[in-house]
Amino acid sequence: MTTSVSSAEDLARLDAVPLAEAIRSRKISPCEVVEAVIDRIERRDGPINSVCTIAREQARQAALAAEAAVMRGDPLGPLHGVPVGIKDVTPTAGIRTTFGSKLYETNIPAADAEVVRRLKAAGAIVVAKTNTPEFAAGANTFNEVFGVTRNPWDTRLSAGGSTGGGAAALAAGLIPLAEGTDFGGSLRVPASFCGVVGLRPTPGLTPLRPSALPWDALRVAGPMARTAEDVALMMSAIAGPSDASPISLPVTMDGLLEQMRNLSVKGLRVGYVDDVSGVGIESGIASLCRRAAHVLADAGAVVEDTVLDLAEGCEAFPVLRGAAVLLTHRSRLDQIDKMGKNLAGNIKYGQSLTLAQVVEAEAARARLWERTCAFFSRFDVLLTPCAPVPPFPVEQNHPTHIGGKPMRSYIDWIAPTYVLTLVGVPTASVPAGLDGHGLPVGLQVAAPRLHEATVLGVARMIQQLVPTPTIAPGFAA
Amino acid sequence: MTTSVSSAEDLARLDAVPLAEAIRSRKISPCEVVEAVIDRIERRDGPINSVCTIAREQARQAALAAEAAVMRGDPLGPLHGVPVGIKDVTPTAGIRTTFGSKLYETNIPAADAEVVRRLKAAGAIVVAKTNTPEFAAGANTFNEVFGVTRNPWDTRLSAGGSTGGGAAALAAGLIPLAEGTDFGGSLRVPASFCGVVGLRPTPGLTPLRPSALPWDALRVAGPMARTAEDVALMMSAIAGPSDASPISLPVTMDGLLEQMRNLSVKGLRVGYVDDVSGVGIESGIASLCRRAAHVLADAGAVVEDTVLDLAEGCEAFPVLRGAAVLLTHRSRLDQIDKMGKNLAGNIKYGQSLTLAQVVEAEAARARLWERTCAFFSRFDVLLTPCAPVPPFPVEQNHPTHIGGKPMRSYIDWIAPTYVLTLVGVPTASVPAGLDGHGLPVGLQVAAPRLHEATVLGVARMIQQLVPTPTIAPGFAA
Repeated sequence: MTTSVSSAEDLARLDAVPLAEAIRSRKISPCEVVEAVIDRIERRDGPINSVCTIAREQARQAALAAEAAVMRGDPLGPLHGVPVGIKDVTPTAGIRTTFGSKLYETNIPAADAEVVRRLKAAGAIVVAKTNTPEFAAGANTFNEVFGVTRNPWDTRLSAGGSTGGGAAALAAGLIPLAEGTDFGGSLRVPASFCGVVGLRPTPGLTPLRPSALPWDALRVAGPMARTAEDVALMMSAIAGPSDASPISLPVTMDGLLEQMRNLSVKGLRVGYVDDVSGVGIESGIASLCRRAAHVLADAGAVVEDTVLDLAEGCEAFPVLRGAAVLLTHRSRLDQIDKMGKNLAGNIKYGQSLTLAQVVEAEAARARLWERTCAFFSRFDVLLTPCAPVPPFPVEQNHPTHIGGKPMRSYIDWIAPTYVLTLVGVPTASVPAGLDGHGLPVGLQVAAPRLHEATVLGVARMIQQLVPTPTIAPGFAA
Repeated sequence: MTTSVSSAEDLARLDAVPLAEAIRSRKISPCEVVEAVIDRIERRDGPINSVCTIAREQARQAALAAEAAVMRGDPLGPLHGVPVGIKDVTPTAGIRTTFGSKLYETNIPAADAEVVRRLKAAGAIVVAKTNTPEFAAGANTFNEVFGVTRNPWDTRLSAGGSTGGGAAALAAGLIPLAEGTDFGGSLRVPASFCGVVGLRPTPGLTPLRPSALPWDALRVAGPMARTAEDVALMMSAIAGPSDASPISLPVTMDGLLEQMRNLSVKGLRVGYVDDVSGVGIESGIASLCRRAAHVLADAGAVVEDTVLDLAEGCEAFPVLRGAAVLLTHRSRLDQIDKMGKNLAGNIKYGQSLTLAQVVEAEAARARLWERTCAFFSRFDVLLTPCAPVPPFPVEQNHPTHIGGKPMRSYIDWIAPTYVLTLVGVPTASVPAGLDGHGLPVGLQVAAPRLHEATVLGVARMIQQLVPTPTIAPGFAA
């Protein structure tokens, strides 16, 4: 343990693994931490607007209880006393949860979502709700309740989305852990834009409760943090079987932190792919990602530039998403005029779909799965760029072009992440360096189902070999 | 080991557990067994037409190899030398596989399905393909390639379906194990009609490869046999993770036979439900099933008559099945005129569906799941009748009425099984006794996901407490 804490400011910016260790060894008290975090959010969040609700009272009470548990020598959970931000689409008991929607502007849930319950059971303290597009529908974070979230690296730019509040809060050093959800890339795109680490886990590891689509494998809950180690620590707390989910996998991820630390990169077969979706990747981003991938060879990996063509997913994903959105919001169709343009548009698109379109999309998804299996028979790990463009001006709904090529819809530009959603393999975004404008660039790391330890072990290695600041320069002090 | 084998006839009719043990201990040779089984099929299958293809050459070669392995003292798989019948919708390398369809009348697959590969890896010997409705579409077994399968208990009657060939072959004492698939009840309804045991496992345990719908949780492969113990032995051989399936569960069922034998019924909370689907159950069947359920109280279980209302599934299932059929057969739409009436009708129905109907069906399925979870928070086990009517004349496509109530479609009458398909819990059919006409009646045993040991342990107990012949009287010698 080499934590050296010189001020409350430093305390608030500590990563989760050293923070949990410092609390466990009584070097830092949970109450100090929570006060430092609340104070820092209050003083520094203004320009980025990453946090939409601060759970002052609940967090302070939890901190007192956590401190008492430490002093009594109780057995402590792996996240004991560690503050966490919860995405505002995830219900939190007694804490305002708006889903970023005017329809739920004053909603205060009675019960925690399962992921929140698990975080609390592991000792984490919910200090904040983080901003999200309305019902997480979009990869730029703004809504009519709380407005726009900005990128801590440059507040003129988007933080990405839909877990944009969480990613920005991490990159601003406001909180060490952020819970989020990922459908098309919502844990990866904002991690890429803000220079942190987000993991989309294998579906069935982190039960989504409550959910309108219990069998759905496209939307998942997952962890985000500044380091791959912190993501592993958080993932081990939220993963595990649930009787209440029909797709729950009967495994825990208890030893994940140790497993990912012990991963040997030596001999690991790594396939680097420039463009999995065919949507295009800006050349500066591709070259930075390729370089980061090949740095793994220094650690003994066998890195090969190769091809994985999941371009069919660009037709299939919007259709499957449209059907899922329709299913999720079918009880709210009469309130569509109170929704923002993106969500309302998604629902209307869903209503326009035929079953034949969904059938073709499912057939395409089956083909993508076969292709992905073939890829992973040759490679242990897939590396590919996360966002195909750098962070764009936050006032834009979405980037309109990639390398000169116009986009058809507001989610086209996240094709590199959503094609990996379709095939259901665990995928993280990890910083691969800074571009010519000093902005972070994320690299996706994917591996076969349930190989979260490989994904995070490789992400950790990349953070060691290509060190990139995980707190934006303006927030480093 | 108390096997006493007095003739080739006896040998062919041995159950799998004692047969495997006798082979392992060199009391019986795999070649003797295979010859006895082929001989018995040739002499006795005529009137029931359960076997559509005998794999004479392959089975004899496999038996020679199995015998050599025994004599060399090789490590032997749990099914070493045990003959198995494979449903004719399941591809077998080098063995004609027609799917019961004129379209595939001369099809000889190059590769085994994953379940066949696993059976062979466990030492089983594929001796026969068993008859099925065209592409397993229907719960009465007939097709235009091989004709009608009849019930060994009364050859005027249906053997049920779609694994009707397998069930009839078991009840005629032709083979000890039968592989099958279950969508709406295809491993349970024929088991009920023929007085044997069929298990629909938790989706994700027995990978369906190849499959047009890799994410689908409605269609599963599974085991059928004359005893719950044999089903457990077979299930342990075919269950386990597969990298090639995106819904594969990361567990094996290696110890299943021991676990189900060791299940203590004492204190087990058993809920008996007359009619889960609301489609109606003929009163004689209901009273027989209720009596069998309450016999478990003699063994220490806490048995309660209760209600589980999954009637919404009667709207939802046909829609979800129609969508799945459409997806499965989308590449064959131009050959619809070469298909039988049932399959062609299913496909046309699928084409008539709107996405809104599928969305409503998925929403209903989510509600059924919640209701099932609530049920299993009160009970460890659900018992409920399997087929709502006794075996009907085989020339009828399906029964037209249940207790005077007319049916809307040809699959309405399997609602008691298909509503349990929708919620994805493991469910077996086990004989609960004989009705007034001396025909077997099946009782469904269901438990929460992955509780196959509970399902089969209870089924075993019922076979002990309510002993019912598992070979039809006309085939007992």
